[in-house]
Amino acid sequence: MSRQQRTKIDAMVRRPRPEDPRPVEELRAGFRAMMAEMIVPAGIRTRAATLGGRPAVLVEPAGTPKAGTILYFHGGSYVAGSPQTAMSLTGNLVARTGFRAYSPDYRLAPEHPFPAAIGDGLSAYRALLDSGEDPSAIAFAGDSAGGGLTVTVCLAARDAGLPMPAAIVAFSPGLDLTRTGESMDTKAGIDPFFTREGLEHTGAMYLAGQDPHQPMLSPATLADLTGFPPMLLQAGTNEMILDDSTRMATRAREAGVDVILDITADVPHVFQAFAGALDEADQALDRAALFLGQHIRTSLTRSGR
Amino acid sequence: MSRQQRTKIDAMVRRPRPEDPRPVEELRAGFRAMMAEMIVPAGIRTRAATLGGRPAVLVEPAGTPKAGTILYFHGGSYVAGSPQTAMSLTGNLVARTGFRAYSPDYRLAPEHPFPAAIGDGLSAYRALLDSGEDPSAIAFAGDSAGGGLTVTVCLAARDAGLPMPAAIVAFSPGLDLTRTGESMDTKAGIDPFFTREGLEHTGAMYLAGQDPHQPMLSPATLADLTGFPPMLLQAGTNEMILDDSTRMATRAREAGVDVILDITADVPHVFQAFAGALDEADQALDRAALFLGQHIRTSLTRSGR
Repeated sequence: MSRQQRTKIDAMVRRPRPEDPRPVEELRAGFRAMMAEMIVPAGIRTRAATLGGRPAVLVEPAGTPKAGTILYFHGGSYVAGSPQTAMSLTGNLVARTGFRAYSPDYRLAPEHPFPAAIGDGLSAYRALLDSGEDPSAIAFAGDSAGGGLTVTVCLAARDAGLPMPAAIVAFSPGLDLTRTGESMDTKAGIDPFFTREGLEHTGAMYLAGQDPHQPMLSPATLADLTGFPPMLLQAGTNEMILDDSTRMATRAREAGVDVILDITADVPHVFQAFAGALDEADQALDRAALFLGQHIRTSLTRSGR
Repeated sequence: MSRQQRTKIDAMVRRPRPEDPRPVEELRAGFRAMMAEMIVPAGIRTRAATLGGRPAVLVEPAGTPKAGTILYFHGGSYVAGSPQTAMSLTGNLVARTGFRAYSPDYRLAPEHPFPAAIGDGLSAYRALLDSGEDPSAIAFAGDSAGGGLTVTVCLAARDAGLPMPAAIVAFSPGLDLTRTGESMDTKAGIDPFFTREGLEHTGAMYLAGQDPHQPMLSPATLADLTGFPPMLLQAGTNEMILDDSTRMATRAREAGVDVILDITADVPHVFQAFAGALDEADQALDRAALFLGQHIRTSLTRSGR
């Protein structure tokens, strides 16, 4: 990246780390303030909606949408964030693909710990299917904790006997609450957002005493991914949870799943949120958009159309 | 893939394995016959050329080419193949990107063992630079042994003090003459093209007694990739040399290189050659074309233009 871009990003991230152990309301406010600086693209329109009994935001391209839906799960370590905080990412996917997206406002810890978020994600997916959307026209996408939900909601859907969506796109997904990736140590001090202490602080709120050694909490090392749809995992080398992605890719490959492990050097966690300010972010989103376009079947339209 | 596509591909590969231990002229004829069945796309034109003192084929889009050059290295285990046998792959990249490509007819073993092919590849790259092409407008691409050359010619360029090209695209690259990847065993019998015996037969011609434990012969486990340009590695899960790609990706990531490891399930070695007959092939080539377009700097034109 250019020096100008680097300076811009450094300025954005040089604020109190959102993951420092702090009361959850402070974490939420800090996360909201940081994400408010991200650039939401032109060419989209949003409106409040309800999906699966939870509030959601429907994001549509300004023109005629292509048939197909992205179910987007925002990040925020399962304790913070909302459809609004991820609007740069969701909006960029919608603007680039022409598909609509639903971004559910899933319940957060500590008020609603594991598995509330997964349950809400599953309800959202089931509601889309019940509305007549073909599963081959639905993709899951998400960032950070929401990247984790792309996988765990897919596991929950399979367990519930629902069909698989067409594809999964995960930006810097959190996929291991046991925190055993080598990058947890090798990237400590390099990662501008996370510390082990901070990750364990928010992780404890989500776990609420549950053992993290289970597939729904640590799918990167424990989940059976048989039958999963094609996955695109994007991450930066400057993140402590990099190995959540690398181990998930290995596991997916061994389960016979199409998987792209797309690693950008020298960029931080969820660098795609810097779209409009960082070339690597825009390029990564273009690759994600191509991948979604390749897997969401646009020949099938929603029922009634 | 569809049953029809599968049947088509099975028919193509159900012929004497090109890698069975046979005299090299028989290997070459078999390889030529197999590759002659691949579909060369419309929208390109080719002409004989010379590059770095070797014959080459220049492949150009039918319309006005974009500024930028793909240096394409054909496959064939270093003992077979030519620019013609790889024309489906080279032509598809040119047609999809709008860049021109040079495909050098590098020397083959056993007549010209290691490091003749690398030397010829380096000469081709140097000739492009000497002609005024900016390195940021040149990408290396190749399949199989030619995928290996994308990496080893880049190593040779760095050793020679030349600037790095803009990007590397490797389809099912051969990157380990020590043949120590786990996939050498786990994919034996699944791989429709290769056997260990066959790989060692052609490998011995290329090695000509050299120790394979050196970076130029086994870069997946031995090369220092510091300073390498962004890499896209594509492979199928039905290939014995799959782990050449997976290990190279890990090594590149650890060296701070942008790297995309793009694995398609249930397809064979260099499945991209089935473009026009297999959806996965066309989709993989579209991803490769986007990657090349993202990294070849089209703002810089060739000198004199």
